[in-house]
Amino acid sequence: MSPPLMVRFHAGEAGPWRVARIQTLAGAPLPAAARLAVQEGGAPPPAATIAWSLSGSTGNLRYTRRAEADSLTTRQPGLARPESCRAALIPIRKNAAWWALAQDERRAIIEEESRHIAIGMDYLPAIARRLHHSRELGEPFDFLTWFEYAPEHEPAFDEMLARLRAQREWQFVEREVDIRLVREGD
Amino acid sequence: MSPPLMVRFHAGEAGPWRVARIQTLAGAPLPAAARLAVQEGGAPPPAATIAWSLSGSTGNLRYTRRAEADSLTTRQPGLARPESCRAALIPIRKNAAWWALAQDERRAIIEEESRHIAIGMDYLPAIARRLHHSRELGEPFDFLTWFEYAPEHEPAFDEMLARLRAQREWQFVEREVDIRLVREGD
Repeated sequence: MSPPLMVRFHAGEAGPWRVARIQTLAGAPLPAAARLAVQEGGAPPPAATIAWSLSGSTGNLRYTRRAEADSLTTRQPGLARPESCRAALIPIRKNAAWWALAQDERRAIIEEESRHIAIGMDYLPAIARRLHHSRELGEPFDFLTWFEYAPEHEPAFDEMLARLRAQREWQFVEREVDIRLVREGD
Repeated sequence: MSPPLMVRFHAGEAGPWRVARIQTLAGAPLPAAARLAVQEGGAPPPAATIAWSLSGSTGNLRYTRRAEADSLTTRQPGLARPESCRAALIPIRKNAAWWALAQDERRAIIEEESRHIAIGMDYLPAIARRLHHSRELGEPFDFLTWFEYAPEHEPAFDEMLARLRAQREWQFVEREVDIRLVREGD
């Protein structure tokens, strides 16, 4: 478990990722942009015009139990694999009813009922994933999840999202935007 | 459950709270200061010289189960009671071993083993409490806990801290400073 890493996603005219599509699934959309840059920790932001930025911090596991964490550690790949030239940034905000739940109630919906961790595990190691927490930073979204995969795994990625979005957990999602990206040099 | 509130504690020459004592229990100390101001949300910071500032955000329950949350809701008082003219700010950082634990392991240590929630409950409604998360803000501490109570409850407050600090959970605390405050107008 690394220390928290602050990550800022800048959409605009610069960055190694070309924006292929921005799809709004719930709530307000995000403005269109051509490129996306990912700024980690103390690195400088892009010099070019920025249309919008979203920030989040990596952090400790909030729901994952030891046995699940061990399975994830064994199977989940790191970011920046050479073949992973597709990515998705999916910002999500959950509603007030979600945040009013106690820890055991949220865990029961996320995993015992919605199988969030187990479904994600089905797509390892094809889909790399990093979760960033935004809610306590005063950001418009609660979570920013970043995914990376090779082009041939995009259908599997879409299937994973369809399975997750069909679960009861997603009834608490009040804003969701799905941003697809293609790596095209720097 | 209110939305997250960003709170900044500014120690220096201004603020309604006089610093009565700063005691370092573990790790590096904090510099001395005469007064403390609490800045909530978008309120302006004090105009006077600031010796140091610590920031944290209120947030959702991380460990508390529904039955515990309901007991707390019934019994815990709000801040700013007229008779609560004593306060304590206790910044804490836990070590890397703590943050490497999975959710179920941390919960087991905090409550099943260390009775953190139950011990705190023994001192309600005398001791009001608000927890602020700092770790994912890139702050030097992980948590800032703010307590308020009437002068006659200070011995009970000290007893509560002694009980908590004797638990296994505290073996993971690598930095802790105990700042006692007296409200003396603005």
